[in-house]
Amino acid sequence: MHVSLVKHAAEDGDVTCAARVSTLGGEARYETSASGTGLINYLMRDRHGSPFEHANMTFYIECPIFVAREFMRHRAGWSYNEESGRYKELQPVFYAPDRHRKLVQVGKPGAYEFEAGTAAQRSALERDLYSAYIWATDHYRSILSRGVAREVARVVLPVGLYTSFYATCNARSLMHFLSLRTKHSAAKVPSFPQREIEMVAEQMEEQFKKLMPVTYAAFNTHGRVAP
Amino acid sequence: MHVSLVKHAAEDGDVTCAARVSTLGGEARYETSASGTGLINYLMRDRHGSPFEHANMTFYIECPIFVAREFMRHRAGWSYNEESGRYKELQPVFYAPDRHRKLVQVGKPGAYEFEAGTAAQRSALERDLYSAYIWATDHYRSILSRGVAREVARVVLPVGLYTSFYATCNARSLMHFLSLRTKHSAAKVPSFPQREIEMVAEQMEEQFKKLMPVTYAAFNTHGRVAP
Amino acid sequence: MHVSLVKHAAEDGDVTCAARVSTLGGEARYETSASGTGLINYLMRDRHGSPFEHANMTFYIECPIFVAREFMRHRAGWSYNEESGRYKELQPVFYAPDRHRKLVQVGKPGAYEFEAGTAAQRSALERDLYSAYIWATDHYRSILSRGVAREVARVVLPVGLYTSFYATCNARSLMHFLSLRTKHSAAKVPSFPQREIEMVAEQMEEQFKKLMPVTYAAFNTHGRVAP
Amino acid sequence: MHVSLVKHAAEDGDVTCAARVSTLGGEARYETSASGTGLINYLMRDRHGSPFEHANMTFYIECPIFVAREFMRHRAGWSYNEESGRYKELQPVFYAPDRHRKLVQVGKPGAYEFEAGTAAQRSALERDLYSAYIWATDHYRSILSRGVAREVARVVLPVGLYTSFYATCNARSLMHFLSLRTKHSAAKVPSFPQREIEMVAEQMEEQFKKLMPVTYAAFNTHGRVAP
Repeated sequence: MHVSLVKHAAEDGDVTCAARVSTLGGEARYETSASGTGLINYLMRDRHGSPFEHANMTFYIECPIFVAREFMRHRAGWSYNEESGRYKELQPVFYAPDRHRKLVQVGKPGAYEFEAGTAAQRSALERDLYSAYIWATDHYRSILSRGVAREVARVVLPVGLYTSFYATCNARSLMHFLSLRTKHSAAKVPSFPQREIEMVAEQMEEQFKKLMPVTYAAFNTHGRVAP
Repeated sequence: MHVSLVKHAAEDGDVTCAARVSTLGGEARYETSASGTGLINYLMRDRHGSPFEHANMTFYIECPIFVAREFMRHRAGWSYNEESGRYKELQPVFYAPDRHRKLVQVGKPGAYEFEAGTAAQRSALERDLYSAYIWATDHYRSILSRGVAREVARVVLPVGLYTSFYATCNARSLMHFLSLRTKHSAAKVPSFPQREIEMVAEQMEEQFKKLMPVTYAAFNTHGRVAP
Repeated sequence: MHVSLVKHAAEDGDVTCAARVSTLGGEARYETSASGTGLINYLMRDRHGSPFEHANMTFYIECPIFVAREFMRHRAGWSYNEESGRYKELQPVFYAPDRHRKLVQVGKPGAYEFEAGTAAQRSALERDLYSAYIWATDHYRSILSRGVAREVARVVLPVGLYTSFYATCNARSLMHFLSLRTKHSAAKVPSFPQREIEMVAEQMEEQFKKLMPVTYAAFNTHGRVAP
Repeated sequence: MHVSLVKHAAEDGDVTCAARVSTLGGEARYETSASGTGLINYLMRDRHGSPFEHANMTFYIECPIFVAREFMRHRAGWSYNEESGRYKELQPVFYAPDRHRKLVQVGKPGAYEFEAGTAAQRSALERDLYSAYIWATDHYRSILSRGVAREVARVVLPVGLYTSFYATCNARSLMHFLSLRTKHSAAKVPSFPQREIEMVAEQMEEQFKKLMPVTYAAFNTHGRVAP
């Protein structure tokens, strides 16, 4: 998973400036340097969400299709542009779990937990993935080589194939995403994200934490529920 | 592709009732039986879009993953729930183009056209798809059989696999979808949808036409640009 | 405040049908009669919000402009059509607090409470409102009578003037609205709505409770935080 | 009307970078300096709207309440924070049409035109506005002076009162706003905005034109229909 922050107009001051127009009106001036820890905590606690919407971030993300599918279900406050299998020949870069990825699911729906799995399970999986990915790539290229359109040929490519996209969000929509797509000890409400999208979310969280440290701290303090 | 209308609260009268509150206020009563061809045409022509948002439809759709991916990029006025590869074992139902699907793309980006392709191209494609799909299914089952979680095993499954979902929209968001995902002689602005999503869109259009004939006619009259 | 439910396609079964497609896929059929208390509670608890978006309701609302202003700040999952001061002459119907409306605010921002106020305060307020409303109405009519456009004349009308509008929402967006615009003993997070919008919200809540009793109960059980 | 651009992360390069990920995927790098007139024109013409969503702007706006009411009906791609009549005492700054504002409406709904009005009409209007605004201010203060809450006292204030707010949008949502809230000779579809919101829109358009000249030119070239 690759995540980079390509553009941002996001700092804690965006939140406090936007919020202060409520009480100060035309006297408020856009001075993002003013401190506002107390105000931001109050807004987070009482779910005044709109002041968090004026801080914007654009991320470039490379992840497998099955992760992008979950990602793009987030609609409000998100904008996307993605690599197209209609306009370009897709490159054979595929996802394989690393050794930290737990493979075996135990429990029942709504309460799953994961266990590491055995070395034998892991090596068999690696062989299967390798074999499946090679086969799919060969067939994709074979179909293309006969002159069939890319948009048709791609149907054989697996959801483990990497895709790339830009995602623009604001601090509010990002916190909503993080609340659902990460597990975190500070969370008041448990989440059960698939580990792969959590790996993307964690990288986004690192960037968010740097850009908006006061907002980020308040998000954790108040249970990681988006305001 | 399978599309069925599972629920609707959508008729032309919803549009006229909503629009009449502008000029009649509290005297307006929700009487969907009143005729309103002239009013609906005026709203469509002058892009008064909001009155079209009170008519809602829920569709059940079965289509390949690559189609669902394009579909769910529509965010405003759309709600989705989809079959999950995390919570259930996915069934091996795959997409293959029928004999009407043109296979060969000519021209350049922004101005592509499609030609049928030769019989040899078509039969080679069928063999490739069959082979790729069988292989993917075998590997998916093999991985599952060793106790690896469904959410990991699915990474080998191709985007030609069928998925199923509910999609709820309103008449305005549906017209926007149709304007981009169909080609139609009445369209003022050309569209270049992939044929497979167009096949889904055409079935939705049939249902829409029956539910809201006056709105549908006005949509075509005014160039199939969503208001 | 007047609220009526003019149209709905909303029942608890809409939620369970939409949710079951996750685990059942194409085998799921839209059977809204199936019971689903456990499932709905699970969805609410773990914040699976999307299944609640397929149930739609359209309300007709009469309330003062200052309430409509707060109302229409709700964007996601809401559609509106309102009476227009450009297209019709507005009628002189104005808001005055009834004897239950507490008039005096004590405390500080973020922690206000209200007290009833004295009889003298109340009767002075009534005289002031009456005087201000009559004056505004007279000037509105005077300006109109000289041939000035309605859209200009209306600038003298106060935000206590009644307006009317249709609002269409889904169960998820409605729960979000209720969580912010009502005070309720079951709420995990406190809200500080202005009493007048709460009066509208309470009437909408009554309708919602009748249409979707299981969803409504789960909303209260889980702290009135929208999923 | 006062409009100022307080923050922006918006340039033509944002559009081309986002669009190029479709055809270049991971090879695309966020290089906003690359020229892209042809690409932007193509995107605008064929209604590829999403690449325009990654360019963000925040405006600070002072305008009368009746204008803010129309403004905030724009939901998708807009975020707002406004001065609050609950949290602060509102200041008596009111709107009066200047001598360029045409006062008399002729024609019928859907085809109104405006004429200047006579000097007598104008001076009578000015007297009426002055009288109505003074009266409202006096009553607002009188109610406040007796200890009644601000949120109640404000009901007598007219919609001609100035309010202030921050509005954050992206280039796509801004173009949609401009297409509906301005009249312009390049527009393919006529609009009938109230002059006062057009005065706000024109100032926003000036800023947009400077920030994103290529996008702005393409918007006009292609009939001022938002992509």
